[in-house]
Amino acid sequence: MATATQAISKEMQQCIEECLNCYSICEQTVQHCLELGGKHAEPQHIRTLQDCAEICRASADFMLRNSPFHGRTCAVCAEVCRACERECRRMGDDEMMQQCADACKRCAESCERMAKMA
Amino acid sequence: MATATQAISKEMQQCIEECLNCYSICEQTVQHCLELGGKHAEPQHIRTLQDCAEICRASADFMLRNSPFHGRTCAVCAEVCRACERECRRMGDDEMMQQCADACKRCAESCERMAKMA
Amino acid sequence: MATATQAISKEMQQCIEECLNCYSICEQTVQHCLELGGKHAEPQHIRTLQDCAEICRASADFMLRNSPFHGRTCAVCAEVCRACERECRRMGDDEMMQQCADACKRCAESCERMAKMA
Amino acid sequence: MATATQAISKEMQQCIEECLNCYSICEQTVQHCLELGGKHAEPQHIRTLQDCAEICRASADFMLRNSPFHGRTCAVCAEVCRACERECRRMGDDEMMQQCADACKRCAESCERMAKMA
Repeated sequence: MATATQAISKEMQQCIEECLNCYSICEQTVQHCLELGGKHAEPQHIRTLQDCAEICRASADFMLRNSPFHGRTCAVCAEVCRACERECRRMGDDEMMQQCADACKRCAESCERMAKMA
Repeated sequence: MATATQAISKEMQQCIEECLNCYSICEQTVQHCLELGGKHAEPQHIRTLQDCAEICRASADFMLRNSPFHGRTCAVCAEVCRACERECRRMGDDEMMQQCADACKRCAESCERMAKMA
Repeated sequence: MATATQAISKEMQQCIEECLNCYSICEQTVQHCLELGGKHAEPQHIRTLQDCAEICRASADFMLRNSPFHGRTCAVCAEVCRACERECRRMGDDEMMQQCADACKRCAESCERMAKMA
Repeated sequence: MATATQAISKEMQQCIEECLNCYSICEQTVQHCLELGGKHAEPQHIRTLQDCAEICRASADFMLRNSPFHGRTCAVCAEVCRACERECRRMGDDEMMQQCADACKRCAESCERMAKMA
């Protein structure tokens, strides 16, 4: 992703990228899980993926505006990403779940750093 | 707004409505302020309205899913709404700013209740 | 929903309301259908509901800005709403599916009018 | 951006990336233009950037679900991107406007291909 404004720090650029990446994978994983069915289609599992996609998108949006509230959205984003990572690890057996869990983990770590710095 | 699931409490229904209402007014107020120009078009003022619109939309989304994280998004939403209310009161002289400030206040109060109950 | 700008016509206000209402019901219906399981949790059914929620949200957003492109987003919104209505009628037996189908129908009709007027 | 499902073609992956990139740049350009002020802060210019950001986000969302309606959202996205490119070229004198125009152009071309293939 290109970020053109000087106002946005290197670290924030990285976090925006992680958020949009995590959003993208969660959104795809929802479809993947619905196709697998069974435990993968449990309401709680799908909802956590949807929550994660939505807060990642919102959090990226706040950072792209260099909003003074980005630390607050990043803190919530990190929390939801951690929950989504756990959810995906719990499913365990599937390559896509692994990828999604890893994306959530990276995004959570990046958002935690942003929240601390804010 | 119609909310059909029993899962969603009366209080939550009310909060979803306040969030979507506040989102709608903030989104319109951005255009209104750009047309007025001058202090109304200051980057910080427009950004606060955009932040408020985005977090209201995200917060409503979490409640519509009856997400266990809705208390967390509502807490951030309340904080941004309070800032947006202050911003709009600071502009003061305009009927639409008044309306926007009032919508932000109602949404903040509703979100604070949801955050406390969660 | 309150719409404060004079720029937004009565008919457009109505359409914004239908879009946000349809978005809200589709978003809730996803959770409802996942809980019901079986045919209600089929990937295609859930995806149509998600598509409908997303385009309703985007379409409302264009109208709130009184964008010259709102006729284009409304046209796509109407098409997706019609598909979602069909999907919900196909499920048939459930009160919430009925409500969702009715909301989609009203939103489609309103968006069709907006698209024609634009 | 990582796309993990096989369901999503190479060409679609590329288009998702262009949409999220264009969304990111438009969102930042809004802030940049508000800071520049003058003609850059004209309501029509800011609104076009907002329209472009919103439809890019929605269009990416449809593709991430591999929705059968993605051709329809991509067609509208291409149209809005072309208008936003023109808007940014019209401002002309600024490096960030150039970058934004280029991102809009690439996204429009990619979306036009997707719309034709659908």
